[in-house]
Amino acid sequence: MTFPTPAVVFPPDQAGTPGTRRSPAETLDRRGPIGKPKEGRPLGGGCADGTGGGCADGRPMDRQVAPGQLDGQEAAGILEYARASVDPELRRAIDSLPGSMRRIALYHFGWEHADGTPAAGNAGKAIRPALVLTATGALGGQHAAAVQAAAAVELIHNFTLLHDDVMDRDTTRRHRPTAWTVFGDADAILAGDAMQALAQRLLAEDSHPASQAAAARLASCVVELCEGQHADTAMEKRGPAEVTLDEVLAMAEAKTGALLGCACALGGLYAGADEEDVDALDAFGREAGLAFQLIDDVIGIWGDPSRTGKPAGADLIARKKSLPVVAALASGTPAATELAELYGVPYEEGELERTVLAVERAGGRDWAQLQAADRMSRAMHELSRAIPDPEAAGGLLALAEFVTRRSN
Amino acid sequence: MTFPTPAVVFPPDQAGTPGTRRSPAETLDRRGPIGKPKEGRPLGGGCADGTGGGCADGRPMDRQVAPGQLDGQEAAGILEYARASVDPELRRAIDSLPGSMRRIALYHFGWEHADGTPAAGNAGKAIRPALVLTATGALGGQHAAAVQAAAAVELIHNFTLLHDDVMDRDTTRRHRPTAWTVFGDADAILAGDAMQALAQRLLAEDSHPASQAAAARLASCVVELCEGQHADTAMEKRGPAEVTLDEVLAMAEAKTGALLGCACALGGLYAGADEEDVDALDAFGREAGLAFQLIDDVIGIWGDPSRTGKPAGADLIARKKSLPVVAALASGTPAATELAELYGVPYEEGELERTVLAVERAGGRDWAQLQAADRMSRAMHELSRAIPDPEAAGGLLALAEFVTRRSN
Repeated sequence: MTFPTPAVVFPPDQAGTPGTRRSPAETLDRRGPIGKPKEGRPLGGGCADGTGGGCADGRPMDRQVAPGQLDGQEAAGILEYARASVDPELRRAIDSLPGSMRRIALYHFGWEHADGTPAAGNAGKAIRPALVLTATGALGGQHAAAVQAAAAVELIHNFTLLHDDVMDRDTTRRHRPTAWTVFGDADAILAGDAMQALAQRLLAEDSHPASQAAAARLASCVVELCEGQHADTAMEKRGPAEVTLDEVLAMAEAKTGALLGCACALGGLYAGADEEDVDALDAFGREAGLAFQLIDDVIGIWGDPSRTGKPAGADLIARKKSLPVVAALASGTPAATELAELYGVPYEEGELERTVLAVERAGGRDWAQLQAADRMSRAMHELSRAIPDPEAAGGLLALAEFVTRRSN
Repeated sequence: MTFPTPAVVFPPDQAGTPGTRRSPAETLDRRGPIGKPKEGRPLGGGCADGTGGGCADGRPMDRQVAPGQLDGQEAAGILEYARASVDPELRRAIDSLPGSMRRIALYHFGWEHADGTPAAGNAGKAIRPALVLTATGALGGQHAAAVQAAAAVELIHNFTLLHDDVMDRDTTRRHRPTAWTVFGDADAILAGDAMQALAQRLLAEDSHPASQAAAARLASCVVELCEGQHADTAMEKRGPAEVTLDEVLAMAEAKTGALLGCACALGGLYAGADEEDVDALDAFGREAGLAFQLIDDVIGIWGDPSRTGKPAGADLIARKKSLPVVAALASGTPAATELAELYGVPYEEGELERTVLAVERAGGRDWAQLQAADRMSRAMHELSRAIPDPEAAGGLLALAEFVTRRSN
């Protein structure tokens, strides 16, 4: 079964346009006069349902955006630029750690093998640092000034990964054994603790006028991430009928949306944006994060294993209370009753197709796709409040598009 | 077996002098003209060996201190004052946490029972907040300005306790079941993570000019605490002959000395002290912390169970590589060989007395007591560099005395 691209906010990119593509640094920094729309690529907002002029929930689209810019290759360029900008700062920070904490951090970031020999590095997609730098650039700030903040956000993300892997007993991360499987629980916990401290130290040692406000915001975000992870693990222990859709949405916002929002907010702070704009950037990142989570959960059920790298229906087999599943369970349909029965007992060989169908018939898939589209629409609305110039906002939209379409 | 007061830096306090004792707030704040020594309480420095005029290692005593002030009751008053000052700030910070993180933190601090009903609170002795506030006052700063910093240090201390208890599988803390035994590993880890974040948020939201430097210093300290805890757990897995005295001392400094030093340093920063004085205060706290650890380890072997609340020889039975044990093992004496043989295999019923004697005959007890006295002497030396006025330094010395004499 393959996962069709969900109904998305923008028409898919027609084609790359070689020669006209900006360099990532330009893309990140392009605050300026509103660019003239390119021929054949009209500026046009739209909603998830593709109706264009307004949103399904009746909210008007209060601005127009430039969909032509939002192709995956542009986002890939931004991510590559962010990775290249932030890695030296990350390396410097991690190299300042004492022996064993350094070794675990270098392993986790893919810069060393388990035996301490150098590795090529696979520190992930750098989405969060890219959001920091892109938001700064979009608001007229300098990337160079925000690199420490971007590295701090990346360290926080990775500290939570280290700890989550211990708690969830996950054994693989970025195609390698997780740190706790190599160094033990205690050292993985300690390395995570040290990485949280390192993130805060980067901001505390940063002389930028926004660094202290950024530190407060990042610390609040960590608290939210902790609550999100708590809610996630607590929910998995409860029966399928005991979990409400609001709870799962709140958990996903805390666990996934909060740090994406915080990354955007920090970018705003480093560009000297006012509180209202910073909050709007935060909301943009949160909504995009929720859209991402919804689509990720859809992929977890209907994704093509050859594309996702995960076995088909892994989330259903593990009886995970993902967003489409909880929506299906809450639908009050006969399929919901069937699904609740299936989820009430452990998975049995051969039940997968029936479970997938039950979620689908109970409306779980449609709900998740519409909800994702609605969240993206809200994200765009928030973004337009903070950055009314569509040209300037293009990089952030490209990133939001990238994370919510990552099955492609 | 009772633990005799080790050879100490100061003659024991003669007697409480009712009516002449300062209020804790006065004690904390008394920077001013050098006070005239009281009748019968001559200012007098001294070394661990009680010789008075100089130190065993040949370093001269470069100043005189006022031993008469350093009684346990004065320290107890300071601690009580610190607890009363910092608790409202701590409560406010913890009350700002979302539901489950708040519940675990309130339980850990003794403000709630496991079922969420209110409890009287037993958040420990507040030694670290007391060091922050006393150092600030001693250098002419205002306590009120440093209360957030004091609460931040206390949160960091408690975050490490939460995590250490998970790693060490300790089941009792402050006479109550540890948080992980009540809420599970994952939630105890998450509550610790949230408390580290909360500590940094307190400093980031603090408008005091020293708050950012304090945040950087506290973050560096957390990294050191992590390395110390790593070294501790790693050492316990190694054979008794594989651990050197330097390693155990470095571990104890990182695990115990670093945060006591950081607390003093933050107090200095909040009083506007220069870097040199701040570093000297840090060194004072570290050395006092090491003295504390040495004496704590001595108590762990020779302490009176009715006073310590621990069963006699618990550390030896658990084959813990405490400082006196490692010193004994490194002594090259026949008793060291005997001890190594005992430590090479798990404890067997009835062996305790033989083990205690082996440590004693190999010189472990004498070494630890001399070392503790030497560390206290170094602590005093560092303190006198930062705060040459003995009257002003009295509160800090009283606290150092208190922590290193807690068996009494």
